[in-house]
Amino acid sequence: MKLDHTAKGVYPIAPTPFSADGRIDFASIDRMTEFYREVGSTGMTVLGVMGEAPKLDNEEAVEVATRFIRRAENLPVIVGVSAPGFAIMRSLSLASMEAGAAGVMIAPPNTLRTDDQIATYYSQAIEAIGDDVPWVIQDYPLNFTVVMTPGVIRRIVTENKSCVMLKHEDWPGLEKISTLRGWQAEGAMRPISILCGNGGLFLDFETERGADGAMTGYAFPDMLVDVVRLQTIGQRDAAHDLFDAHLPLLRYEQQPGIGLAIRKYVMAKRGILASDAQRKPAGGMTALAKAEVNYLLARLERQDARAAGLAE
Amino acid sequence: MKLDHTAKGVYPIAPTPFSADGRIDFASIDRMTEFYREVGSTGMTVLGVMGEAPKLDNEEAVEVATRFIRRAENLPVIVGVSAPGFAIMRSLSLASMEAGAAGVMIAPPNTLRTDDQIATYYSQAIEAIGDDVPWVIQDYPLNFTVVMTPGVIRRIVTENKSCVMLKHEDWPGLEKISTLRGWQAEGAMRPISILCGNGGLFLDFETERGADGAMTGYAFPDMLVDVVRLQTIGQRDAAHDLFDAHLPLLRYEQQPGIGLAIRKYVMAKRGILASDAQRKPAGGMTALAKAEVNYLLARLERQDARAAGLAE
Amino acid sequence: MKLDHTAKGVYPIAPTPFSADGRIDFASIDRMTEFYREVGSTGMTVLGVMGEAPKLDNEEAVEVATRFIRRAENLPVIVGVSAPGFAIMRSLSLASMEAGAAGVMIAPPNTLRTDDQIATYYSQAIEAIGDDVPWVIQDYPLNFTVVMTPGVIRRIVTENKSCVMLKHEDWPGLEKISTLRGWQAEGAMRPISILCGNGGLFLDFETERGADGAMTGYAFPDMLVDVVRLQTIGQRDAAHDLFDAHLPLLRYEQQPGIGLAIRKYVMAKRGILASDAQRKPAGGMTALAKAEVNYLLARLERQDARAAGLAE
Amino acid sequence: MKLDHTAKGVYPIAPTPFSADGRIDFASIDRMTEFYREVGSTGMTVLGVMGEAPKLDNEEAVEVATRFIRRAENLPVIVGVSAPGFAIMRSLSLASMEAGAAGVMIAPPNTLRTDDQIATYYSQAIEAIGDDVPWVIQDYPLNFTVVMTPGVIRRIVTENKSCVMLKHEDWPGLEKISTLRGWQAEGAMRPISILCGNGGLFLDFETERGADGAMTGYAFPDMLVDVVRLQTIGQRDAAHDLFDAHLPLLRYEQQPGIGLAIRKYVMAKRGILASDAQRKPAGGMTALAKAEVNYLLARLERQDARAAGLAE
Repeated sequence: MKLDHTAKGVYPIAPTPFSADGRIDFASIDRMTEFYREVGSTGMTVLGVMGEAPKLDNEEAVEVATRFIRRAENLPVIVGVSAPGFAIMRSLSLASMEAGAAGVMIAPPNTLRTDDQIATYYSQAIEAIGDDVPWVIQDYPLNFTVVMTPGVIRRIVTENKSCVMLKHEDWPGLEKISTLRGWQAEGAMRPISILCGNGGLFLDFETERGADGAMTGYAFPDMLVDVVRLQTIGQRDAAHDLFDAHLPLLRYEQQPGIGLAIRKYVMAKRGILASDAQRKPAGGMTALAKAEVNYLLARLERQDARAAGLAE
Repeated sequence: MKLDHTAKGVYPIAPTPFSADGRIDFASIDRMTEFYREVGSTGMTVLGVMGEAPKLDNEEAVEVATRFIRRAENLPVIVGVSAPGFAIMRSLSLASMEAGAAGVMIAPPNTLRTDDQIATYYSQAIEAIGDDVPWVIQDYPLNFTVVMTPGVIRRIVTENKSCVMLKHEDWPGLEKISTLRGWQAEGAMRPISILCGNGGLFLDFETERGADGAMTGYAFPDMLVDVVRLQTIGQRDAAHDLFDAHLPLLRYEQQPGIGLAIRKYVMAKRGILASDAQRKPAGGMTALAKAEVNYLLARLERQDARAAGLAE
Repeated sequence: MKLDHTAKGVYPIAPTPFSADGRIDFASIDRMTEFYREVGSTGMTVLGVMGEAPKLDNEEAVEVATRFIRRAENLPVIVGVSAPGFAIMRSLSLASMEAGAAGVMIAPPNTLRTDDQIATYYSQAIEAIGDDVPWVIQDYPLNFTVVMTPGVIRRIVTENKSCVMLKHEDWPGLEKISTLRGWQAEGAMRPISILCGNGGLFLDFETERGADGAMTGYAFPDMLVDVVRLQTIGQRDAAHDLFDAHLPLLRYEQQPGIGLAIRKYVMAKRGILASDAQRKPAGGMTALAKAEVNYLLARLERQDARAAGLAE
Repeated sequence: MKLDHTAKGVYPIAPTPFSADGRIDFASIDRMTEFYREVGSTGMTVLGVMGEAPKLDNEEAVEVATRFIRRAENLPVIVGVSAPGFAIMRSLSLASMEAGAAGVMIAPPNTLRTDDQIATYYSQAIEAIGDDVPWVIQDYPLNFTVVMTPGVIRRIVTENKSCVMLKHEDWPGLEKISTLRGWQAEGAMRPISILCGNGGLFLDFETERGADGAMTGYAFPDMLVDVVRLQTIGQRDAAHDLFDAHLPLLRYEQQPGIGLAIRKYVMAKRGILASDAQRKPAGGMTALAKAEVNYLLARLERQDARAAGLAE
């Protein structure tokens, strides 16, 4: 079951669960994976930026990926293999694929600047991991400071046949989706799957622009699933109504640096994770921040029963 | 009427109106200033980043500032005087204060890195403009890539008696407000006014954390005024209800690069500006983007009559 | 006398002379201009990064440029017109050309990242200043953080007929010169002049790679003139011998941030400037740094009589 | 044999030798280590930025470090353990110390900006590796874009007792050495060893400013040893004479990106490495660049017999 360009729906970005003492919480990996499946996810992505991947050593990374993959059964799992060098990227990629991953995701190092540097980097990465591994471009300028024009993305897609998906999280990014889909429609670029990240902040319109769905980690992935489904069946207003009900919390969660703490806090409240622990060094939430999240949950509960009872 | 640390309420960031041929549209300056006053603004800020200030030559900048100041009458006007060198900063600052400005705003150049570099820059700037000109620190890391800790802000405030306000637009930034207000409460820092920017994306909570109001440019500054007012009189839920109704559009407008185009587009629809023209080089909106904004306006109209009839 | 692609030789980057009280020292402008002519410069460049241009207001900038141009008589003068916005760039450019400048030089703002952003910026700049003004691309990634591939430079040259010169100061940059000259030889790019900056640190080989000369500000521009001349007449070893004799001091002067202080210090010793004053904010030299420069001058004197008596 | 603040002399930055097919060339590790010892090095540093460390997977990194350490016998070996996360940093650090390393070196990730961020990062890193491992701060702003003031370095040294050395490669950096040594002299900072990198470009003066020696990778480490020795015994002019003879080549080698290719090319010529191969992705030298290096070697040979016969 390898990833290809027809992928759609929602691939939640899975956090890595830890116990309070910093050990990996494998039971929560199982529970979370079950949850993702039950709410209608079409796949999942592990060991991304939000998955605290750099806090794992290489053996741990493979263990975590493997546990997700086994539990996911028929759901495709994408493994983040970004690394400062190609040797580690290669070994993580091979180990993931052997364990049954559907594909891998590669972010650009934040030193890349020119179009040529970006395209060359991806060609070299693919030479390292092998051109038989389906893979995802991660385009996240706000975090990586690497700016990819639509033209560079097309060039990467053209030069690397094993590239099947774009994790789109440029900001702003709506016109980028339209440009890429326009090129596909004209036959000027082969089809790829586009799943959107960036915390989901523009998912309501991204799907209308031609994205195939979402790949992000909001604590209510079930909402993301519903929004994508509603847009797919043409219920635009209903999709926006649901999205807008969540937007105050979603926006709160999308804050750089502390977003993961908020996400784990809410996921623990929902019973998806046993705890909101992060491995050190961890960004924490103040009591005031927790009270704000609870206030937002209480307000959300009026419009979405999934938030019922979560605000203490 | 000079700016001091007791400033509160809403200081809209005023765009600079242009005609389609690139000339400054002074009639729209007058109309916009009237509008700001009528909706309850307590001041205004001109020639900021969103005011297309770099597209004006120095004489034009003084003309624009002067026109706003005259029309504003008793409303305090803050003039952005950020410049690549202190000679121009000084001449703009002097001309603005002579024309009756209440104070000036200074953003850090994007080459500053260390705490010392930042503090030294501001000391040198104040030496250039004179320490009798009230001024505002602009703390906007997402745009300027200069990161100011609360400690650096306190140092700048302590070292420069004429600093009376922080334009707070760090992201995330809620804890920064709490830290600064905590220091004030302990007597560890003299009081300053804190008005929040960043498109207003967290205004609902910023006011609760101790901010004195908003300084940003959302196309419905009247909403910002109401939210600050409701929070001031303790109507928290009502404040959030109003804010949340606007959040989908506010979020859409906050996109870097194209935000100003959206803002002018909506302000022109509202009759505040004669046109949405920007001076070249201008970022434009596609037809799809306009349709999306109109869809958001139509949805907003259901909850806020001020949006009535704006969606074509 | 307008600049064109046949320019060659040495265009010293002229510092702006100030008195100790910060006023512009016009007498030193005259003396320096005479000096440049007498030592065989083929032109000069004023108001560059090292010319403290951002410390001048716009009237002063025009005054300084005009004084250089008048005194330079038949020597072509290039004026740096980089500015945060096109309005000021345009007015500086027009004023300079009216005063008799041979052309202007434009550096990219440090926010540009992609190839398209860079090329678009230059097209917009030329639209602003007019396509009848000969101009120079400044390619200085170490200072501006904007990385231009040879392909982007070719694109800019192709899209803008009035572009006649590259101020080459990439680091490393030797292969870039070879690539551009290779394209010219193949007819894949129209000819431009290439003058090298970057403090002159690689001038010995840049000329061998096909550069037409130097545009930089080392305190012994007469050495630069000799090196370029020796290379032109095929005396390679002699060129390197002279260059190597100066390299210890040249390297010392090339330090970012304090380079200008060193340069003015030596130029004042040589009697080219009345003083080494910089306008505030100024980077200074410690007593130790001055002693080091004097030690280097004493060592240089053994190989180049022009350094005789300069070390106190 | 653990590293402490009395370390002095020259610790060459050892490249990692590879065969043409990308395998690690352990025989060259042995030969290089012998060479370093024979020419009077007082220690060595492996797996630094120039050691192609990111191209190794974790097992290879430990193998390489171990081989160097065993062969070095009584010479202290510092192992670079910079990593994107603390888990890998910890495991590399523990494995290195178990293998007999004298200490480790830690570079800051290029996302750090404020003084607090930098100091916090190092505290967290030391918490991860244990405070019984002697370690070196790597201060290399040109490469990492992290700017450390002398005050931040003092803070890190004060907060972390196991910090014993600064690898100084700021540029410019002479005043930084003087400031730190001044603080030590006043008792305002505990003593640390300062070894200088940055390709050795200012080693002639760094030693005079109070540095204890060099830690860099120029292809003639024997020259570095001699310069440090001559300065130590007060033969200033002789030290500069030797340094200046090498400066043209040293400057050529110091070019970012291609410096390692030049270094390996010359070391292979000297017989220290079996080949100049880099593991992919490798920056190469053009034929012109090789000819330039050979020209520089031929010129050097006139002043230093160690270069005899190296130019083909």
